[in-house]
Amino acid sequence: MQFEQSPHRRRNPLTGQWVLVSPHRNNRPWLGASEKAQVKDSKRYDESCPLCPNNERANGVSNPDFKQTFVFKNDFGAINDMPADVINEQDTDELFVAQSARGECRVVCYSPNHDETLPEMSVAAIEAVVDCWQEQFTELSQDYACVHIFENKGQIMGCSQPHPHGQIWAHDYHSTEIATKNVHLKAYLDKHQSNLLGDYVAKELIAKDRVIIDNPHWLVVVPFWAAWPFETLVVAKDDVTNMSQLTSEQKQCLAKTLQELTIRYDNVFNCSFPYSMGWHNAPSDLDDDSHWRLHGHFYPPLLRSATVKKHMVGYEMLAESQRDLTAEKAADILRGVSDIHYAKETS
Amino acid sequence: MQFEQSPHRRRNPLTGQWVLVSPHRNNRPWLGASEKAQVKDSKRYDESCPLCPNNERANGVSNPDFKQTFVFKNDFGAINDMPADVINEQDTDELFVAQSARGECRVVCYSPNHDETLPEMSVAAIEAVVDCWQEQFTELSQDYACVHIFENKGQIMGCSQPHPHGQIWAHDYHSTEIATKNVHLKAYLDKHQSNLLGDYVAKELIAKDRVIIDNPHWLVVVPFWAAWPFETLVVAKDDVTNMSQLTSEQKQCLAKTLQELTIRYDNVFNCSFPYSMGWHNAPSDLDDDSHWRLHGHFYPPLLRSATVKKHMVGYEMLAESQRDLTAEKAADILRGVSDIHYAKETS
Ligand SMILES: O=P(O)(O)O[C@H]1O[C@H](CO)[C@@H](O)[C@H](O)[C@H]1O
Ligand SMILES: O=P(O)(O)O[C@H]1O[C@H](CO)[C@@H](O)[C@H](O)[C@H]1O
Repeated sequence: MQFEQSPHRRRNPLTGQWVLVSPHRNNRPWLGASEKAQVKDSKRYDESCPLCPNNERANGVSNPDFKQTFVFKNDFGAINDMPADVINEQDTDELFVAQSARGECRVVCYSPNHDETLPEMSVAAIEAVVDCWQEQFTELSQDYACVHIFENKGQIMGCSQPHPHGQIWAHDYHSTEIATKNVHLKAYLDKHQSNLLGDYVAKELIAKDRVIIDNPHWLVVVPFWAAWPFETLVVAKDDVTNMSQLTSEQKQCLAKTLQELTIRYDNVFNCSFPYSMGWHNAPSDLDDDSHWRLHGHFYPPLLRSATVKKHMVGYEMLAESQRDLTAEKAADILRGVSDIHYAKETS
Repeated sequence: MQFEQSPHRRRNPLTGQWVLVSPHRNNRPWLGASEKAQVKDSKRYDESCPLCPNNERANGVSNPDFKQTFVFKNDFGAINDMPADVINEQDTDELFVAQSARGECRVVCYSPNHDETLPEMSVAAIEAVVDCWQEQFTELSQDYACVHIFENKGQIMGCSQPHPHGQIWAHDYHSTEIATKNVHLKAYLDKHQSNLLGDYVAKELIAKDRVIIDNPHWLVVVPFWAAWPFETLVVAKDDVTNMSQLTSEQKQCLAKTLQELTIRYDNVFNCSFPYSMGWHNAPSDLDDDSHWRLHGHFYPPLLRSATVKKHMVGYEMLAESQRDLTAEKAADILRGVSDIHYAKETS
């Protein structure tokens, strides 16, 4: 294999998109922008935070005195459950296709503690988050075909509230990513009579060089086709297609997996590692979803340090994603760091 | 039409991707990150700039005493013209598809002047840039199927050198965007026996509400399916499929168009407006490229001010692009600002 020596492309079988890999370019000097390093909040409770227990939010409502997770309707949601009909005069024209979007946006506070991000939480506290995701998914997937559970962590990822939280956007349409994946997963099943992500798990376990965490129920890899420098894929090893199917054991194991993964992330540059992460569940309106497998994506932007990120700009926007570090090298780094959080290391 | 009242989705016919539009969300308060406003260089010549005339670059080579544009090979190119073969042991497996990438990366200095971005250059100087693009395209498309000409402007867009310049990445493969567009453009021609972008131009000229600039050879619109707040599409009104076909008159008209468009951008927030922009030409290895039409995209990140940008993060990465401002509103704003650069307004 010449992966470390030479520019090449790799194909993402979930989306059909390619990524350009330029391992030799890793050494170029960086003279561009540096970001502000994320300043971690150190207060357990912040009286001015709209996500802390008992505090008032912008809409005048006060949060309860919650002890674990707390979910509320996003006061500025991008979608709502009573959209007006979009009457598009040009609707019959395929150059001007529009449709109304019905849905709900919610915020999930991970815990009452203002200063505890996932890697700093106990496994039990993370388990409460996973339980909450499951409840929310189960409820919302009754009404909506597509339930997106995700987190933007860090200001650099557009997160506007430091209190650790995620979001849920549920809606009556298949989002572009889900629709695309549905096609690719289905085509693979039809061709091979086996599950794409199931086969992928088996093969990564043999190849080993991209694996970060492997336990009875979950596999974490830097996928062969990763676009972001330290992107990872969290895949269920069991045949589950959505969150509602997870057993207590699978959830507990997931909590441990997420704790270890996010600790490893923080340890790469000894900082609160920013990312966007989210879950891809089978859409709930499929007659048969056996081509699906529950999985999550972590898309972290950092490249070289706590302040130098990968810019997905010109070429990436107009052509395709590009990376310098190979997936195998990134996996090496993530495996190489400690699984004890840098802030807790006894020195 | 209820576009201004209610959440809806619109479909991009060039890629098949959808964008979620949430006009009601425009009023939410912003508490998140603010970016450093771009500090404009005010020196005409900077002795420490590797892109100024006569200066030495990192590789020890000195730039000539250029008077208009100047092109050189990118010293840290993501692709090169002698890649080793990628020997992928798992190559026959559709989950691990890789291929070597052969190509060239070049840098195009727009002018000798360190302090002159496109909106500050004369039409004649911009014409020299367009001529240069044409020469480069004509040369490189002999060797490579796909020639990407683009510019990242501003530190926020990952631009590491303030001296106004663009880039060219040419390669022997169809990038993901080009491959996707090729499929959609071809399908439209097969179905309608007419050119997708030709039809789109005609319809936008009737609708008028998304048009920014309309002249004999070029149309600039905020496309119906725009993802970025102030995204625009620059389309050739004539039947040209790539840059090499442009006549002097079309090029001169393009220079004027680009000057006006970039001046309008700078005037939106009275700042040097960051963006990634680039050209989509028909790939040069097609037997028949009549389904293509030369066009350019401007993807500017700013949303509310010189320092608050749109973050394409969690939902956008995991589901689909989302915007608050409608395309029609954005077009209104771009039409409403002056076409004289704010720094040159006599007050
Ligand atoms: O080539 P530059 O300007 O150093 O780098 C910039 O543009 C490239 C092409 O869009 C991107 O791959 C880089 O992430 C970005 O920082
Ligand atoms: O909802 P928030 O956290 O205010 O906003 C953030 O996440 C959203 C969902 O990914 C994005 O649309 C916004 O651009 C981003 O700033």
